[in-house]
Amino acid sequence: MKEARNTERYDIAIIGTGPAGVSAALTAKNRNKSILLLGSRQMSEKVAKAHEIRNYPGLPFVKGEDLAAAFRDQLDRMEISVTEQRIGAVYAMGDYFALQAGEEMLEASTVILATGVVMAKTLPGEEALLGRGVSYCATCDAPLYRGRTAAVIGYSPREEAEAAFLAGVCSKVLYFPMYKEQTDLPDTVKVIRETPGEILKKEAGLAVKTEAGEYPADGVFVLREAVAPGQLVPGLETEGPHVTVNRRMETNIPGVFACGDLVGTPYQYVKAAGEGNIAAISAAAYIDRVNKEKGE
Amino acid sequence: MKEARNTERYDIAIIGTGPAGVSAALTAKNRNKSILLLGSRQMSEKVAKAHEIRNYPGLPFVKGEDLAAAFRDQLDRMEISVTEQRIGAVYAMGDYFALQAGEEMLEASTVILATGVVMAKTLPGEEALLGRGVSYCATCDAPLYRGRTAAVIGYSPREEAEAAFLAGVCSKVLYFPMYKEQTDLPDTVKVIRETPGEILKKEAGLAVKTEAGEYPADGVFVLREAVAPGQLVPGLETEGPHVTVNRRMETNIPGVFACGDLVGTPYQYVKAAGEGNIAAISAAAYIDRVNKEKGE
Repeated sequence: MKEARNTERYDIAIIGTGPAGVSAALTAKNRNKSILLLGSRQMSEKVAKAHEIRNYPGLPFVKGEDLAAAFRDQLDRMEISVTEQRIGAVYAMGDYFALQAGEEMLEASTVILATGVVMAKTLPGEEALLGRGVSYCATCDAPLYRGRTAAVIGYSPREEAEAAFLAGVCSKVLYFPMYKEQTDLPDTVKVIRETPGEILKKEAGLAVKTEAGEYPADGVFVLREAVAPGQLVPGLETEGPHVTVNRRMETNIPGVFACGDLVGTPYQYVKAAGEGNIAAISAAAYIDRVNKEKGE
Repeated sequence: MKEARNTERYDIAIIGTGPAGVSAALTAKNRNKSILLLGSRQMSEKVAKAHEIRNYPGLPFVKGEDLAAAFRDQLDRMEISVTEQRIGAVYAMGDYFALQAGEEMLEASTVILATGVVMAKTLPGEEALLGRGVSYCATCDAPLYRGRTAAVIGYSPREEAEAAFLAGVCSKVLYFPMYKEQTDLPDTVKVIRETPGEILKKEAGLAVKTEAGEYPADGVFVLREAVAPGQLVPGLETEGPHVTVNRRMETNIPGVFACGDLVGTPYQYVKAAGEGNIAAISAAAYIDRVNKEKGE
């Protein structure tokens, strides 16, 4: 299965399983396109944690968890599977896109970005040290820190799996949970309940600075649900935290579409779902146009 | 109640009760704006008649009639009522809009157009003779044909009420149903099961021309669910059958917003619902901005 995926080229890769990504997947499937839906089967945290949504047409006073469950059920019934892989980068390869998923490369003719908006500010030092000790992808960069010390700043419990994975590679793993929930980590991971305020460059390696002290590490992994879109797709035109799109949800890169919170306010479920629908139809039309030009 | 409505100025008038209009109403209500939702309580015919909708996120394989019922239920639970009046025209009055509903004038600070797209072509002669014997509004123009002959070309069974109303005013009413369903009309209305192909100007009055003959009439009422948007709102910028909007669903007229099929393809339920949400938020922001400028 893993081998097969390496060689299969999907029509549409959809990154994100919030309302925008789910909507895009449903419509793309309806248009008979092969799709790779990447994200969490728990759907977006923003949806699942919503108390009550009063303005989603057709589902009065729906609880976030129930909307997320409805999305999951609908994907199942439409035979759409969710691939739970984190995409580190998307590269334009000419007539297709390569999506870096850890050590694996996935391929798709078009990409729909539906990753949500990154609300959290970056930490001081984070951007300056990115690629120089700071990483957003444990799977990609773990080998660099084999037998050394890694610090992980995790913004959600889902990041714990990455920390556990690093514990099998690094000699020491420090984990800074940026959330209140109890952690569930192997004993080899040291959980530090202090809030990182900065990432520092030291003579040897880096350090995570908290209100209580400094924690040296060779590598610092900052793991959030979404990375900034310009980092995810090199060359993508953005306006602050948002990807620039037109009303067809086309970005500046032909074959790359974006939708949902990622493309701007209002941050609303049905707005995101509507845009996912448009993005899927635009992507399907793009594929059909390209195939026609190729004479296929 | 009728008198009260004459003087009340609503924050937002929403014309249309398809997914775009319903979505706009839910969000506007959520934002604590007073709303006037104009359309049919049966919701749009396009929704109600849909066999099965496979890509409306959250409602797998929903039948059109069930989606329409869900919309109605949600409006009820949100205490949003539907005003079943046909709007003949929308006029910009400076700091508000006047909506012509038969002989009544309704008022709103902003207007959201969600009327759907007019798919039917106009009949030859229809546009040229509009206002010169051809009318889109029985309630408005019936007095002109008191004691005379009116022809009604009705595109849906809902238009029969207008024909029945005309029968109480005119000496003779001819009714051309443009649909297959059985008609349910008073005996004073003569139903003609022939398809009008043209409206002719004659020496005295007009005539409806069918494949079988010509039917003289003093006035010809062409009654469709929606009128062309440029006719509905004088000065509105359109591109073919669509209203020109930006991503905030703003039209060229400040305070007038549009959404749904009316603003372009894809003609999809969730796309329309998403745009209705955006339009409502834009209208609410517009009202807040105007009030702030007024120092209120």
